[in-house]
Amino acid sequence: MFSIFDSQMMLRAIELAKRGIYTTAPNPSVGCVITQGDDIVGEGFHFRAGEPHAEVHALRAADENAKGATAYVTLEPCSHYGRTPPCADALIAAGVSRVVCAMVDPNPKVAGRGIQRIRDAGIQVDVGLMQAQAEALNPGFIKVMKTGLPFVQLKLASSLDGRTALANGQSKWITGDEARADVQVFRAQAGAILSTSQTVLDDNPSLNVRWEQLPDAVKAEYAQDDLRQPVRVILDTQRKVSDNAHLFSLEGDVIIVTASQADSGNDTVKLLTVAKEAGQLDLNSALRALASHGINHIWVEAGATLAGSLLKACLVDELIIYQAPKLMGSDSRALVNLQGMTCMSQVPAFELTDVTRIGNDVRLRMQKQQPE
Amino acid sequence: MFSIFDSQMMLRAIELAKRGIYTTAPNPSVGCVITQGDDIVGEGFHFRAGEPHAEVHALRAADENAKGATAYVTLEPCSHYGRTPPCADALIAAGVSRVVCAMVDPNPKVAGRGIQRIRDAGIQVDVGLMQAQAEALNPGFIKVMKTGLPFVQLKLASSLDGRTALANGQSKWITGDEARADVQVFRAQAGAILSTSQTVLDDNPSLNVRWEQLPDAVKAEYAQDDLRQPVRVILDTQRKVSDNAHLFSLEGDVIIVTASQADSGNDTVKLLTVAKEAGQLDLNSALRALASHGINHIWVEAGATLAGSLLKACLVDELIIYQAPKLMGSDSRALVNLQGMTCMSQVPAFELTDVTRIGNDVRLRMQKQQPE
Repeated sequence: MFSIFDSQMMLRAIELAKRGIYTTAPNPSVGCVITQGDDIVGEGFHFRAGEPHAEVHALRAADENAKGATAYVTLEPCSHYGRTPPCADALIAAGVSRVVCAMVDPNPKVAGRGIQRIRDAGIQVDVGLMQAQAEALNPGFIKVMKTGLPFVQLKLASSLDGRTALANGQSKWITGDEARADVQVFRAQAGAILSTSQTVLDDNPSLNVRWEQLPDAVKAEYAQDDLRQPVRVILDTQRKVSDNAHLFSLEGDVIIVTASQADSGNDTVKLLTVAKEAGQLDLNSALRALASHGINHIWVEAGATLAGSLLKACLVDELIIYQAPKLMGSDSRALVNLQGMTCMSQVPAFELTDVTRIGNDVRLRMQKQQPE
Repeated sequence: MFSIFDSQMMLRAIELAKRGIYTTAPNPSVGCVITQGDDIVGEGFHFRAGEPHAEVHALRAADENAKGATAYVTLEPCSHYGRTPPCADALIAAGVSRVVCAMVDPNPKVAGRGIQRIRDAGIQVDVGLMQAQAEALNPGFIKVMKTGLPFVQLKLASSLDGRTALANGQSKWITGDEARADVQVFRAQAGAILSTSQTVLDDNPSLNVRWEQLPDAVKAEYAQDDLRQPVRVILDTQRKVSDNAHLFSLEGDVIIVTASQADSGNDTVKLLTVAKEAGQLDLNSALRALASHGINHIWVEAGATLAGSLLKACLVDELIIYQAPKLMGSDSRALVNLQGMTCMSQVPAFELTDVTRIGNDVRLRMQKQQPE
């Protein structure tokens, strides 16, 4: 069904899609390549919600050459009117003779309807080329569409012996400059950065993306003005965070997730109220509520308590640990608050997906271990 | 002083030397290449203490072609009569016209005398080509010669959160088969495996090298009979280990290091008595005593207490940690017993030298951070 040329073109479409990973949220990153014979006659990618989709950019570039062409798209073309008209219709109107898509759109508003619409117009549609790579472009979008829950990356930083601070709380700095700059790349790709009132009270952090700390490769491709600040989400069951906290003074939205019904927020503070479960904020409900507010992809930077609670509730999709080659000692603070396991089979285990040295530290990336 | 050809030949000599790393202890691993013009006319390496040195093997292979040749040796040729006659004399007698050595012998019995002897015979000697690589062949030999202390590798295995067992002691298995096989490679290269009476009482371990678990590349190069079992050294301050412990039933020597003067050992148990310091075995004295018994290179596999004591005493040269992508929880057992640090500058810090994925685990290798 797919030729080597097809694979080359889809790979190019995936590369194009990647140019949107810092900007498209909550929309998915999508790339499109249009070919006539052996030639690329149009390319495009989605840059920002509300702006044209990848297919529209590529069709505009191809112009008259779209007639009889093949269109490679990393995601099924949309079939519904959103902020832009359906791309399926645009491909049909342009007269392409074949459409190759990497994956069916998990969005229930599309879910095969775009493909059907194009086929109904008598155009060949082939689906499934490089599906895994295309899915990796949009873990948040796919997770929310399939489950209603956002994709959650839990970031931790520790010493070799799994400690995050000395007994007296000292922790600056465990990891080096390079590891801290690497964190900026992840923050910039997330829809939200999630933390807790405790972290805000302890550290008064910014929790934002700092242009000057992004790698040169990113800065070369984006204008500083294009940079989207992730929403900062603070879990604050009892509304302890003051309106004067540093994070409110910085560009970008802040959402306080609370269990307090009494407070209704103000100009500075946007509140999201969720139920408590066993005296704690119900994390599952909190994450679902955030997803319904357009947050697909959450980067968590908090303490051992939230880390433990998210892990216990099986809400972590990816674990990212920066480890410094240091030993902080057995009386220092634990990486994750998890207790009471009595058998190795109960121990949360992950699949290592990447091990990279970052400066003098190591970054480990892990996914939930898939049941065999 | 050195040409590209010289470098190529020394690299070859280093590769030859590596073929002895499982067998030469307590002697250093040494390789030798003899060239006439652009041709290699003889090669050799040291295989086992008491057997001919690298230069002798290479000279035998070169035979008459050694006259006027250049000899590349990874270590300064010896000048003293040990179990074999001096290699410096053999090179002179064979009529070579130039000797290139990677490094001066740190052995005070040699320490430049071999080089001087060859120069005195009117032969050109050039020293220092690929010195760092040559030094890496024999960390134990060099450390003992320079300091009187053996080279100490501390092996640890833990979860991501730096834990070695659940609160109830369960720990089988944290790391996977591949990591446990990798440990065999390190054990096989060490002169001794060091552990404690506590580990022997808890686990009744073998602490030996198991032929069937060595990688195929190693098994292809050695006969099973050539395999040298490292000496197993057990720190047993109060002589708690019984003569029936499993490790005594296996091939290879066992040394019990104790503070007890009363006991003088028996046929099974070889004792080494060292002083106590603050109620504990004096580790510095114990390591010096082991070095004087021909143990240059020690691989430590023990618990958090010995690990902490060795680190506190600055006796660890290399730290090797196998990490499994698991979280064992904040009530589980700590990697290293170290306590009371109040400032990040007191925290033992290392320089990462290697990060390798081993199966679904990660192996981190670290050296003492060199003062800047």
